[in-house]
Amino acid sequence: MKRTAFFISDGTGITSETLGHSLLAQFDGIEFEQITLPYVDTLDKAEKVIQQINAAAQRDAERPLIFDTIVDEAIRSRISEADAFKIDVFSSFLKPLEQELDARSNYSVGKSHAIVERHKYKARIDSVNFAIDNDDGARIRQYDQADIILVGVSRCGKTPTCLYMAMQFGIRAANYPLTEDDLEFGRLPESLAEHRHKLYGLTIDPFQLAAIRHERRSNSRYASLDQCDFEVREVERLFKKLGVPFINTTNFSIEEISTRIMAEAGLERRMS
Amino acid sequence: MKRTAFFISDGTGITSETLGHSLLAQFDGIEFEQITLPYVDTLDKAEKVIQQINAAAQRDAERPLIFDTIVDEAIRSRISEADAFKIDVFSSFLKPLEQELDARSNYSVGKSHAIVERHKYKARIDSVNFAIDNDDGARIRQYDQADIILVGVSRCGKTPTCLYMAMQFGIRAANYPLTEDDLEFGRLPESLAEHRHKLYGLTIDPFQLAAIRHERRSNSRYASLDQCDFEVREVERLFKKLGVPFINTTNFSIEEISTRIMAEAGLERRMS
Repeated sequence: MKRTAFFISDGTGITSETLGHSLLAQFDGIEFEQITLPYVDTLDKAEKVIQQINAAAQRDAERPLIFDTIVDEAIRSRISEADAFKIDVFSSFLKPLEQELDARSNYSVGKSHAIVERHKYKARIDSVNFAIDNDDGARIRQYDQADIILVGVSRCGKTPTCLYMAMQFGIRAANYPLTEDDLEFGRLPESLAEHRHKLYGLTIDPFQLAAIRHERRSNSRYASLDQCDFEVREVERLFKKLGVPFINTTNFSIEEISTRIMAEAGLERRMS
Repeated sequence: MKRTAFFISDGTGITSETLGHSLLAQFDGIEFEQITLPYVDTLDKAEKVIQQINAAAQRDAERPLIFDTIVDEAIRSRISEADAFKIDVFSSFLKPLEQELDARSNYSVGKSHAIVERHKYKARIDSVNFAIDNDDGARIRQYDQADIILVGVSRCGKTPTCLYMAMQFGIRAANYPLTEDDLEFGRLPESLAEHRHKLYGLTIDPFQLAAIRHERRSNSRYASLDQCDFEVREVERLFKKLGVPFINTTNFSIEEISTRIMAEAGLERRMS
């Protein structure tokens, strides 16, 4: 069984697709074709959307699902006329919130992901630049400004995790690769030792690590299972010896790794 | 007036905070303290959360708001006993969805941001690595694999936009800085010319560009308003001459820039 789901917004569509995606993830047995339609901000665009929805209804022989975060009342009501099952996010929640807050919502379009406070937004972008500048041990001078420093063997997931934490939560995350030398000596490089309270370890299943490394340098010693197995075993031993908290990334998404680390390390999200 | 808002989840909390953030953005006049509480997945943790909520209620002399995406019925119902106004996302929408889909939801925790299909997740992480490898004109060999190539003057927002598109939507985005030489000759570097249909331009207000550049190299010619003004004027002239679509990033967030470019360029989101 296949159903089509539309995430429709007069803004970026991010809220609508995030919510819709979460709700649909609760239905395992059904295959969903998921289509995001952002910036539906005129009645003309609404007409085209309705045609697209009705075409999907005909094709699927089942009515599509709509997850709608359209703010504009006229556009939203026009979309309701499509042949679809509709989850109307703002209608469902804004009225009760208005009552609770004893305030009128401003019904302005595109507020969810706009820049609200310039200095907060800037801090977030600065964190992204910080993550890039401090990727892969490239710099060590700025570690006093870091909120967290991820450590682990090459290709265990440090870079995407740092970038996600920066991008999504404004966290200043650096990362440093632990090399074979570090592992053989069983100690941290000096540049890290003085920031030990900021360190967080990543580890990974050796088979998965070998697969990832093979893509970069196939059939190298670096990518061999023996080498990956050695490095992972030693890095975990080092984390335990030094009391560095660590997480195994093998089965987690960057969203899960990032939020788990932040929860464990007590880092507050800085969103704008 | 200040109110405290809690985004509570037994998973990452990302859905809850995204939705809550969007709804609260509709109330301009009220200041919200926003607190995300992820991984509330035991009754013990629920007890602590309730204490935290009730403490906020006392302190604010107004009941806090809760945006709740907890899946577990027992934990969710325990949280309901806190002294708060609650928006219960899954309760509101899962039942009607079950009815529409004629299926039971699986009520499993942490599905929203978990890895569902490994190959799709891998493609997304590959896109992040692609963005890093192809940042700032570092490589030009892989442009045939790019979905889009952002072009613009130094520091106009190319890198964070590429990373966001990769991270959030799995888009393979490269970027290439147009230099003074390129602008003086009024033509594209050869490496770009053959990929013209993939190019998308970014431009920016010269004052903001000068401010950003001053932070990197203060009082340099590079950061002078004259230079920024010249580069922006010339780059816009070049975009128009060559018919390269472009967007002014000055007042847009990376979410808005990314989703607008994708909508304009007809790029489909590849989410997992």
